[in-house]
Amino acid sequence: MASQSVLTPQSEDFPRWYQDVVAKAEMADNGPVRGTMVIRPYGYAIWERMQSEMDARIKRTGAKNAYFPLFIPESYLHKEAEHVAGFSPELAVVTHAGGEKLAEPVVVRPTSETVIGEFMAKWIQSYRDLPLLLNQWANVVRWELRPRLFLRSSEFLWQEGHTAHATNEDASAYALRIHSEVYNDFLVNVLAAPTYLGIKPPSERFAGATNSMTCEGMMRDGKALQMATTHELGQNFAKAFNIYYQSEEGQSELCFTTSWGASTRLVGGLIMTHGDDAGLLVPPRLAPVQVVVVTVRDEPEVNEAADRVAKSLLDADVRVEVDRGRGSFGRRVTDWEIKGVPLRVEVGPRDLAQGIVTVVRRDTGEKSPHGLDELASAVPAMLETLQRDLFASAQSFLVDNTHDVSSVADAIDAAKDGFARLDWDLVAGEGESELNAQAVSVRCLQRRDGSMPVSDDEGDLVCLVAKSY
Amino acid sequence: MASQSVLTPQSEDFPRWYQDVVAKAEMADNGPVRGTMVIRPYGYAIWERMQSEMDARIKRTGAKNAYFPLFIPESYLHKEAEHVAGFSPELAVVTHAGGEKLAEPVVVRPTSETVIGEFMAKWIQSYRDLPLLLNQWANVVRWELRPRLFLRSSEFLWQEGHTAHATNEDASAYALRIHSEVYNDFLVNVLAAPTYLGIKPPSERFAGATNSMTCEGMMRDGKALQMATTHELGQNFAKAFNIYYQSEEGQSELCFTTSWGASTRLVGGLIMTHGDDAGLLVPPRLAPVQVVVVTVRDEPEVNEAADRVAKSLLDADVRVEVDRGRGSFGRRVTDWEIKGVPLRVEVGPRDLAQGIVTVVRRDTGEKSPHGLDELASAVPAMLETLQRDLFASAQSFLVDNTHDVSSVADAIDAAKDGFARLDWDLVAGEGESELNAQAVSVRCLQRRDGSMPVSDDEGDLVCLVAKSY
Repeated sequence: MASQSVLTPQSEDFPRWYQDVVAKAEMADNGPVRGTMVIRPYGYAIWERMQSEMDARIKRTGAKNAYFPLFIPESYLHKEAEHVAGFSPELAVVTHAGGEKLAEPVVVRPTSETVIGEFMAKWIQSYRDLPLLLNQWANVVRWELRPRLFLRSSEFLWQEGHTAHATNEDASAYALRIHSEVYNDFLVNVLAAPTYLGIKPPSERFAGATNSMTCEGMMRDGKALQMATTHELGQNFAKAFNIYYQSEEGQSELCFTTSWGASTRLVGGLIMTHGDDAGLLVPPRLAPVQVVVVTVRDEPEVNEAADRVAKSLLDADVRVEVDRGRGSFGRRVTDWEIKGVPLRVEVGPRDLAQGIVTVVRRDTGEKSPHGLDELASAVPAMLETLQRDLFASAQSFLVDNTHDVSSVADAIDAAKDGFARLDWDLVAGEGESELNAQAVSVRCLQRRDGSMPVSDDEGDLVCLVAKSY
Repeated sequence: MASQSVLTPQSEDFPRWYQDVVAKAEMADNGPVRGTMVIRPYGYAIWERMQSEMDARIKRTGAKNAYFPLFIPESYLHKEAEHVAGFSPELAVVTHAGGEKLAEPVVVRPTSETVIGEFMAKWIQSYRDLPLLLNQWANVVRWELRPRLFLRSSEFLWQEGHTAHATNEDASAYALRIHSEVYNDFLVNVLAAPTYLGIKPPSERFAGATNSMTCEGMMRDGKALQMATTHELGQNFAKAFNIYYQSEEGQSELCFTTSWGASTRLVGGLIMTHGDDAGLLVPPRLAPVQVVVVTVRDEPEVNEAADRVAKSLLDADVRVEVDRGRGSFGRRVTDWEIKGVPLRVEVGPRDLAQGIVTVVRRDTGEKSPHGLDELASAVPAMLETLQRDLFASAQSFLVDNTHDVSSVADAIDAAKDGFARLDWDLVAGEGESELNAQAVSVRCLQRRDGSMPVSDDEGDLVCLVAKSY
């Protein structure tokens, strides 16, 4: 289907395939400091598209962007006991600055609940200031001993939302809205990535949360990747940072807070959700380049026709690039396949003589001739079809590789190349340790009908378990 | 003209006025770690608009966004001698991470020439890879002993562009394009901020540059603010980082590089270029809120009319917000004036009975009645007029407060409340020290006709000198 690949096949060595794609699609490089990452222009263009799609959804929920400092006093982290225990092993600490030893060391933010909590306490006076809905796009640092580009890096980019509410109900409802209208909507409708939506078991919750909601995607090797999480923090951080408000009745009340994030891990998730042996495959709604127009030969009429084609697509709001490079046609095609551009328009002298060009789908390899006059109207529909097909294919993969089992032993077996689903009652407690001993973990809890439980103790739940990134 | 102010008047205490505006327009707060800054939603919305306008211009020059790591090995900085000397006093150093002392300390980037130089050397093979045009939006850290929000903060946000070229001519031409088509165009056409365009004298150049171009704005107190700078780095960083390319003739050649940046300082520049005793004044093309629709009374018909007005403006692509808060009308008006929203539409029952609303210009206080049916077509034109008037007013201020003088002593005198312009020959050398001793510096060099010289030694130049932020 695709041209001869220059990548390690997925079936031969999946981690190696992943590394090959990241390198050969020019997505990222390792930085000079252990675990850090250089995001190259093509990888960053994909991240910018993710940002813009998520940012629009976040703003629609009423949240506003702000920016809080990179450096946090070490003492802040100690204010919430579980939080500091969760993050201490991963902290990077600045001890010297401006040529002097600092009186109090500062940590590089691993996440910003603490510093934002401090300012929420300052800004919130009365119920009129609630809900306070904030988001920031920022870099964070969590020291990684076994880094992998995009998946686990010592520094990564993300958005972190932080909100404060008058009641628990309002906090829960808002968190659910983020989980569903921001993350799940983005994953389904832009990334074409179906996930299991559920809540984390207590052992896997965010440090300091009372409830964590997750979107768990299945990668092409059957492992799980947590694509985005939304946390209800109850009053834990409000207590630690004195986030009080005066109620309509004039009482001083503690707020309820939430936090939620999605990061450059999503780029890793994209690669492993849709990639194949020919490389990356970017869903059209996400793709920074939706169509590449490739000239078959470097001839004036061909180049001019390619420019006209590109212009007509641009006018139809298609994100298009022209490749009339000098290298061999086959080599250039392979490179664009590795980069996962959804559609390729091949412009050659023989086709042109008949007034046509050839459109090639990156996912199926299917070729179709198109008249120059109708191309610009045909392409947007083809992109939408491809988008839908990618989702359907990922959805089948998810379903086909999720196995209903009835024991922890069978779950461990099933998790060799997919997810297992079984009664949470069979797992909670001892079972979870048995799974963990085999590097399998509980990814999320659901009700039997697949809906989201309110809490892990509502009874009659199932869990999805898998190996994970 | 404006309602009774709650701010310190500019004439009474300009620095205090600035602090008041930053606090009361809810632009920013001091962070908990010395010199760091919390950018609040309104301040951040302004920065996001600046980003989006500059980003579009940067992309038009062909540069692509990427992301390089926050942490840089300390040894990298030592590779370019002037560079390390320039930045050493301001570095923040991470000595511990992941619970252990690091073998080599890492610095938090004060700027990214060094790490980007390292990767340019890796990515550039031949002349076909040139020019390599990169940009990143990132936070950087330069430890500040006397921090001021937006103007000097230990951490700030910026874009930094880094490019590599085959020839000095190409590097110079591209740098000039950034200086003029990105920075000056943005400053003039969006920020409505006229500046002096020139080159820095050798003493004021970026650490490691062969030439630095600058846009020097005049603040309302007559001091200078460097709004954006563009550096030609010659082959200094190419030598230090081995950035070679193979020429068409097969020779190995050193590249020429450039770097260029604009930061959240621009928000400080905005405040001090256009602000008055009533607060901030945001030029319409920049403003995140161009029009605020304020209800005079909290009555159902008034609220409905306000929503209809907002809807009609939104449909005319105006960025609009509705304020039908419960506080006193006067207080709400004052708050929007402090925030500098360019136009205010007042919706009250008496006007409504006649089918009109009142539009108030933030800059002049001028009020005009408008029929509900023609408002949406009138407002965009009013915004453009206001934009032009702001530029014209800032331009007059710049011209009126620039004094042509013929001695260093007179220049020092003129710099008490404005800029002085005098022959560079009178200043170069000793004169510069005399100025510096009085906290006056050479902001830029120009030709007599105001155009940009190629180099500081081309002769017959003038310099603009001022106190500065």
